[in-house]
Amino acid sequence: MTEKKYNNDYVQDILNIINSDHTLKEKRDLLDEYHDKDIAEAFELLPKEERKLFFDYFDTKRLSSIIGYIEDSEDYIQDFGYKKYAMLLNKMDLDDAVDILENLNENTKSRLLPYLHVKRREDIFLIKSFNPDQIGHEITTNFISIERGLTIRQAMKELVKQSSTHDNINTIYVTDHNQYYGAIDLKDLIVARENDDLEEIIATSYPHVYAHEMISDCIDEIREYEEDSIPVLNDDNEIIGVITSTDITDFIEDEQDEDYAKLAGMTEQSDLDETVKDGMKKRLPWLILLLFLGMIVSTVVGLFESVVAEIAIVVCFQSLILDMAGNVGTQSLAVTIRLLVDENISTKDKLKFILKELNIGLSNGTILGLLSFVFIGFYIMIAKNRPFMDAFILSGCVGVSLFVAMVFSSLVGVVIPMFFHKIKVDPAVASGPLITTINDLVAVVTYYGLAWLLLIQIFHVH
Amino acid sequence: MTEKKYNNDYVQDILNIINSDHTLKEKRDLLDEYHDKDIAEAFELLPKEERKLFFDYFDTKRLSSIIGYIEDSEDYIQDFGYKKYAMLLNKMDLDDAVDILENLNENTKSRLLPYLHVKRREDIFLIKSFNPDQIGHEITTNFISIERGLTIRQAMKELVKQSSTHDNINTIYVTDHNQYYGAIDLKDLIVARENDDLEEIIATSYPHVYAHEMISDCIDEIREYEEDSIPVLNDDNEIIGVITSTDITDFIEDEQDEDYAKLAGMTEQSDLDETVKDGMKKRLPWLILLLFLGMIVSTVVGLFESVVAEIAIVVCFQSLILDMAGNVGTQSLAVTIRLLVDENISTKDKLKFILKELNIGLSNGTILGLLSFVFIGFYIMIAKNRPFMDAFILSGCVGVSLFVAMVFSSLVGVVIPMFFHKIKVDPAVASGPLITTINDLVAVVTYYGLAWLLLIQIFHVH
Repeated sequence: MTEKKYNNDYVQDILNIINSDHTLKEKRDLLDEYHDKDIAEAFELLPKEERKLFFDYFDTKRLSSIIGYIEDSEDYIQDFGYKKYAMLLNKMDLDDAVDILENLNENTKSRLLPYLHVKRREDIFLIKSFNPDQIGHEITTNFISIERGLTIRQAMKELVKQSSTHDNINTIYVTDHNQYYGAIDLKDLIVARENDDLEEIIATSYPHVYAHEMISDCIDEIREYEEDSIPVLNDDNEIIGVITSTDITDFIEDEQDEDYAKLAGMTEQSDLDETVKDGMKKRLPWLILLLFLGMIVSTVVGLFESVVAEIAIVVCFQSLILDMAGNVGTQSLAVTIRLLVDENISTKDKLKFILKELNIGLSNGTILGLLSFVFIGFYIMIAKNRPFMDAFILSGCVGVSLFVAMVFSSLVGVVIPMFFHKIKVDPAVASGPLITTINDLVAVVTYYGLAWLLLIQIFHVH
Repeated sequence: MTEKKYNNDYVQDILNIINSDHTLKEKRDLLDEYHDKDIAEAFELLPKEERKLFFDYFDTKRLSSIIGYIEDSEDYIQDFGYKKYAMLLNKMDLDDAVDILENLNENTKSRLLPYLHVKRREDIFLIKSFNPDQIGHEITTNFISIERGLTIRQAMKELVKQSSTHDNINTIYVTDHNQYYGAIDLKDLIVARENDDLEEIIATSYPHVYAHEMISDCIDEIREYEEDSIPVLNDDNEIIGVITSTDITDFIEDEQDEDYAKLAGMTEQSDLDETVKDGMKKRLPWLILLLFLGMIVSTVVGLFESVVAEIAIVVCFQSLILDMAGNVGTQSLAVTIRLLVDENISTKDKLKFILKELNIGLSNGTILGLLSFVFIGFYIMIAKNRPFMDAFILSGCVGVSLFVAMVFSSLVGVVIPMFFHKIKVDPAVASGPLITTINDLVAVVTYYGLAWLLLIQIFHVH
């Protein structure tokens, strides 16, 4: 039985090989066995002197792929020098190269650009002509494309030729007078016999996207095809690149991130590199809206000033009830947003979902209402030194309000986002402030209303 | 220029072909051009009678792949009958078959099982021996594997042979006496010349995972390799299956979903099919905890009963300040959780991040504090009919409290999750209740404390 080895150990193996007494040739052969990503990790752990030697260990094509795995590659430009680093950018997947260039400062960029091939500069220019929300901004030119009308043997030969520079070979794209015509699954080409007709194995209705499409509009559909790559066309139906399954994973993650950032009351997700000003701008709109909506709640609380003036103890439990209602609303909102991501959900399923949330609200509301009735009753008796009856009338108000607020919040947390979804307003962005305000209002009116009725009007507690 | 056609139209095309007057042979040829996913969508739109004919249009291998794209396939079992449906399950990707079987009721399942191949039943049994959180539960046996020591020609022949039943061919796995030995990139096999040594193109340090590993523990690392498939080994180092890039996208999405469900105060994410009881159980723990933490806040508010009793109007703005503090805390928590997902973040970056959040809190706090000072001042004058001085002393208390609460919340929202992350407690699950409670306490003490000091002690407002 061979020794079990976790992937983490590979990086250590690579470091050991580099630091060993092997000849350069031996090192090259040994390093050949490792994955580019593990080599990239080892690279980052090495001192500058050792990093410089990487041009001896690997050819530029492989080294470009290794460097493509490094996130902050700016630090390493000086290891290789501008000219050599530009050679790597020339061979790298186009989207990786663009990512690296976009993160460089203007000075470094302008020193690298003259060393890039004309074709590469054109491709970069093309990608940058798209907005970051568009598919075209994320394409790579790493794909194989052949003209229609070849024989199986010619197609295979063309594949072998192109695969020296392009390694996304699982799907081979076919053009007809430069326009996108269809796709060949590599498996079918391999299995085909020499005298088969190539046309037979071309799927002319293989999915595709246009470069100008918004990522958020087409990502869910593209993903459902479960393909390794999808061709991206310009408006003249020419293939200008592909997006890969790795890109799709990134898109899905980004999209989900945005949704939840919106739930937390931000216009979009932040990251480490953003400026304070950008961070402010993303959060301020919701906060200002909430301030003014909060004034509505304040006005309603103001109607009960007299209750508070007479029996100040009621104020103690306001935060408890409002926090609880707020949290239940957030829970319902979070599950509803997730449900609404699925476009195919039927009205019947939506009703079923609303009923289920209502049921959960009723059950949890009952449990917490009873719990707080008993617990808060004793709390008031002991901590506040109030008579038994007074304590349990007040804790009854808290319990009932908690129950009502929780049931109501679980309904509001579902219905409001569904409503916004129906009228085509992004439910993640619009629901939060409205739900908070409605829940606060219901909770406040129920609690102070009950307190007024029971404590003041009926039982004359003071 | 060919007509531009969006992918949606494909489904309509397929329906048109099926409903056309073409012969069966012609329909078969035409349908051959379309993607399995589009055909699956068309299938779902057809009446029962038309669906039955799908066994005539496609061979079982292709039809199994089509059915693999349908989510609720239970409805369609009767279209084909148990025996034919079982034939599809035999040919389908193992993980798709397991997904379908897991969603069937016991009766249907027991009628299908006798028709499944022994090998397939064993594989299903193997998958089900893993917990759904483990990698082994998500594997497919759709992969190519060859023994070490073949020639290039033999390897190619073996690939062609196996690819009739297994279409994940991009990476070919190599075993040595049945144990995992390494992987061959298909591209290298295609480019290799007949007398090259196969051993040369085997990467013996290609990444792998063990079936018993938890998905959440290894998914981030697996993903970084950006491969189409990763081999999954048992404890004897035998390959029992692979996970594909599609699986990885699903894992990433699920993991992110769980994180945000936890942020919303649930132990895990819900879905449409869960029972009310399960839904309750996921939400109740946090709610009960919050109830008891809320009691702490209530106790502290209780200390200021006398302030409220004397100047009841102060109670109007409590909800405003607490909601605002809560929201700022949620914003900071959401961005911090996202930051902490990246394991490689340095202490320097963390400090930089804390400082940035603090800065955002200071800026937004200043803006909102001033806004509410002015706006609420006039509001109290007009709506509550109070003299200018009184109004602006009170709105001053609100403004200052809002500022303090917002700055403090933005700090707490960052520091608490970082602390939990440090002590290896899941920050998404543990942070919420603590942050809410601390923020409430700070806001309440600042606000009522200030009101007591300014309104009662210094200016004697009443």
